[in-house]
Amino acid sequence: MVKELWQLKAEKCRQILKDSLNPAWLLSEKDLPPASQLDVSTFVETSQVLTPKELSITKLTASELVEQMAAGSLTAVETATAFLKRAHLGHQLLNFATEFLVDEALARAAELDAHFKATGKLVGPLHGVPISVKEHIGLKGRICHSAYIAWTDNIPSEDALLVRCLRGAGAIIHVRTNEPQSLMHADTNNVIYGPTCNPYNRKLTSGGSSGGEGASIGFRCAAIGIGTDIGGSVRIPAAFCGVFGLRTTALRNPYKGVLLAGEGQESIRCVISPLANSTADLNLVQRAILDQEPWDEETSLCPLPWKKIEPYTPAQITVGVMWDDGMVHPHPPITRGLKYAKAKLESAGVKVVDFEAYEHARGWDILTQLYFPDAAKTQKDLLHSAGEPVLPLTEWAFSVAKPEPITVTENWELNARREAYREDYHRIMKERGVDVILCPAAPGVAAELNVGKYWPYTAIWNILDQPAVSFPTGLKADPSIDLVESEYKPQEGHDEREYNRYTPELYVNAPIALQVVGKHFRDEEVVAATELISKIVQA
Amino acid sequence: MVKELWQLKAEKCRQILKDSLNPAWLLSEKDLPPASQLDVSTFVETSQVLTPKELSITKLTASELVEQMAAGSLTAVETATAFLKRAHLGHQLLNFATEFLVDEALARAAELDAHFKATGKLVGPLHGVPISVKEHIGLKGRICHSAYIAWTDNIPSEDALLVRCLRGAGAIIHVRTNEPQSLMHADTNNVIYGPTCNPYNRKLTSGGSSGGEGASIGFRCAAIGIGTDIGGSVRIPAAFCGVFGLRTTALRNPYKGVLLAGEGQESIRCVISPLANSTADLNLVQRAILDQEPWDEETSLCPLPWKKIEPYTPAQITVGVMWDDGMVHPHPPITRGLKYAKAKLESAGVKVVDFEAYEHARGWDILTQLYFPDAAKTQKDLLHSAGEPVLPLTEWAFSVAKPEPITVTENWELNARREAYREDYHRIMKERGVDVILCPAAPGVAAELNVGKYWPYTAIWNILDQPAVSFPTGLKADPSIDLVESEYKPQEGHDEREYNRYTPELYVNAPIALQVVGKHFRDEEVVAATELISKIVQA
Repeated sequence: MVKELWQLKAEKCRQILKDSLNPAWLLSEKDLPPASQLDVSTFVETSQVLTPKELSITKLTASELVEQMAAGSLTAVETATAFLKRAHLGHQLLNFATEFLVDEALARAAELDAHFKATGKLVGPLHGVPISVKEHIGLKGRICHSAYIAWTDNIPSEDALLVRCLRGAGAIIHVRTNEPQSLMHADTNNVIYGPTCNPYNRKLTSGGSSGGEGASIGFRCAAIGIGTDIGGSVRIPAAFCGVFGLRTTALRNPYKGVLLAGEGQESIRCVISPLANSTADLNLVQRAILDQEPWDEETSLCPLPWKKIEPYTPAQITVGVMWDDGMVHPHPPITRGLKYAKAKLESAGVKVVDFEAYEHARGWDILTQLYFPDAAKTQKDLLHSAGEPVLPLTEWAFSVAKPEPITVTENWELNARREAYREDYHRIMKERGVDVILCPAAPGVAAELNVGKYWPYTAIWNILDQPAVSFPTGLKADPSIDLVESEYKPQEGHDEREYNRYTPELYVNAPIALQVVGKHFRDEEVVAATELISKIVQA
Repeated sequence: MVKELWQLKAEKCRQILKDSLNPAWLLSEKDLPPASQLDVSTFVETSQVLTPKELSITKLTASELVEQMAAGSLTAVETATAFLKRAHLGHQLLNFATEFLVDEALARAAELDAHFKATGKLVGPLHGVPISVKEHIGLKGRICHSAYIAWTDNIPSEDALLVRCLRGAGAIIHVRTNEPQSLMHADTNNVIYGPTCNPYNRKLTSGGSSGGEGASIGFRCAAIGIGTDIGGSVRIPAAFCGVFGLRTTALRNPYKGVLLAGEGQESIRCVISPLANSTADLNLVQRAILDQEPWDEETSLCPLPWKKIEPYTPAQITVGVMWDDGMVHPHPPITRGLKYAKAKLESAGVKVVDFEAYEHARGWDILTQLYFPDAAKTQKDLLHSAGEPVLPLTEWAFSVAKPEPITVTENWELNARREAYREDYHRIMKERGVDVILCPAAPGVAAELNVGKYWPYTAIWNILDQPAVSFPTGLKADPSIDLVESEYKPQEGHDEREYNRYTPELYVNAPIALQVVGKHFRDEEVVAATELISKIVQA
């Protein structure tokens, strides 16, 4: 059978990925766990792909790596090698990468080591930190397609600004990561690379749209990951894979050089931001980025440095617990996580109050109209022009769009409604005396592959443009505890669909994560609150 | 003849204005200067409407007023009375007001005095400062129509946020000011109140769209004025009336509560900002506003306090002189002003370089498409629904609109082009080593009434979102010096039209102003630069 052009283009991209792998670091099929082994999160411990020292390096946070490199007890080459090897294994197990940058990463690491040897100084605050980057964040001279076959010939002439900031601070970009078709799934699958799986349960998704990053950081293939988030695309993968994922307020991090269908759409902004294994690392990378004053190039950014906040004490914050969003009742593991967190916070002396979701249906109504004001024509044209098959979750995402484009003036009305909703929500938080909201990051733990359909738990904070962090509670889904709530009578629609997909056995071992949400532009405060909350909850 | 409904509505508004005047402070017709007396800028000195003390009060800047009130040598009631009386005379001469707030202002002044008497302390940094406010900035319980008959029944339920900030800082709002139909003229005229004139030459406009504010501050009817600017609407009136006018970067000052057709349009943002008689007053009012953290209510604002900058020394800045914008050659008085300023700056030790305008036609092309992406349907519908006559300058403003609305995706493309232009301009300024640009604020001094048609000298900084201040050089147009440049061969179109309207005699005595432009979000720096430059130039 003659292959179609889109298939050839997809093949070309897969070949690039294949060619980018170092065969010496790959396990043969027979040494890999069987497909029936769902939890591969600890496979690296026994696989002997990494030496014991390499293994221990990959367990360090970025902050610890930099500390050891500053002390001279660790080299950048050792570090890059360890993470590259782990990332190769991670890719074999989870299919999370779109391209490895082995030679470039090692060459840069050698440069960093030479610099340190010559001067005794680090290049910058991210000296030698291996960072994975979502595919649609442009890298100079490398194809950047944003998971669209139509864009597989696009080669940026420079790195995305945020990548330049990372590199300027000494970071090493060693692997690029997978994303879903259209970038609008809470899942990661496309016609080029196929699905990315969850390290804790390979029947489940690593989340989306930055699902490659979720798997990367969840499996510790990188010390820090960079994703993008317009509806939960950083926070959902972070939550599903048991790591920390920050969505900053818009106009803080430099966005220039990210390839997304609908450039110039500003009513609901996509944000680029990090995933990491600690809040300290979120602070580290945010400060490293903003200390380079990216607003001096991307002039639309607010010139706000990442300010230093003293760690919060329990008495300093009031946490509002949002048990559900008034639209979809969370699954039992999530509710258990919330109850557990509330009890721990209260014992630790944190003031916790209930926080009823404020008109989330209103926000969702505005948001869905702003996602695709052109009736998703931009995205559909891209898909159709290349002839690639449209995946069911892509159809699902587009189904919120109106059948015809809205007018510019209708767009203005939605902007005005959005502003009013933002101001109302901010006022409500103040009136209720709540500093941060603790809520689900999704209705459940990681969903089955190709199934995740409900993202308002994260997306509501996108329309509100409030900063939020998803974090792991340390708990895992457990079929023996997290029984079906048979007495619950779901509402028709989303609630019923989400209720019906809950089968305790399916989600065994999936991390239980929650989300901390702060006020507009109080990004540092929400990270500080997450630090306090996560430490108490995980203790 | 039976009056049309729109005429009755216009009459109602005029009646409100008439009823708001204190008859005791009005001169009779016979005591007013004849219409043939063009320059009325010093009429107040001889009219005896104000006592000598009142006269001297109105000559103080806001900073000086506050200082004297803090010292107990001046009361708020004396101050409000003096400015109210002067504003009555100003209105009789220039037709700049839409409503006086006599009772309210005096009552508030009495409260402030009582507070000071009881505590020895000022209420805030604007204690007792009389401030005039452009009509479309909403005041609680008072009609706010934005010069549209269609909106003459609109009564806001609260003050605009910026007004609340002013009042919170102790300011007194004592008069509201005129604006043109559609708010898109560089002139001030509408079917309700008619034209506002220039205090220095009543054949000329006070500028627009904040022309009421230009006249108010130019005649010192208020110590500070608040206007709005989406294409030069603060800077043009300030320039034409010989005062300082700031256009801040967008998202700094609180905009909530300003009534403008096309709410929710965000591609080119209207900015609300002050006019004053000194740069110290610009700093005073900006700090007073932003110290109240308006972003805690209007969440879209960047949370940037108004930072204190030490006065610049001549060696600290490089000034790029832009002699023309590459589209329209300035009139002789403006070029004389630029030459004069350049020479003075150089003698004072400021580094001055020539700065060629960077692709202003490109910026103007983007800007004009973003002004009326709906083919001005929003504005036209408002005008037609009320049946009010459409003024020629309104037609002129709408003539830049395309005949049909553009689509949302076309709007996105324009946004992307705008961002690219902004980044290019910023880079160019850095490459050329220029801190601020010194350029015309308009192709000429104040235009004849109902004639001003060319605003790209200010509007280019709106599409670029760069902060700018127009300031008086201290020079006046002089027919004996500012001869027609008969050797100049204008290009067809705007350039020819603007060239042809230059008749030296017409502009006699009009202030010659210039504009200082800084980089995005460097508002404080542009005010500091203007302070240095204006002091040197005026010396």
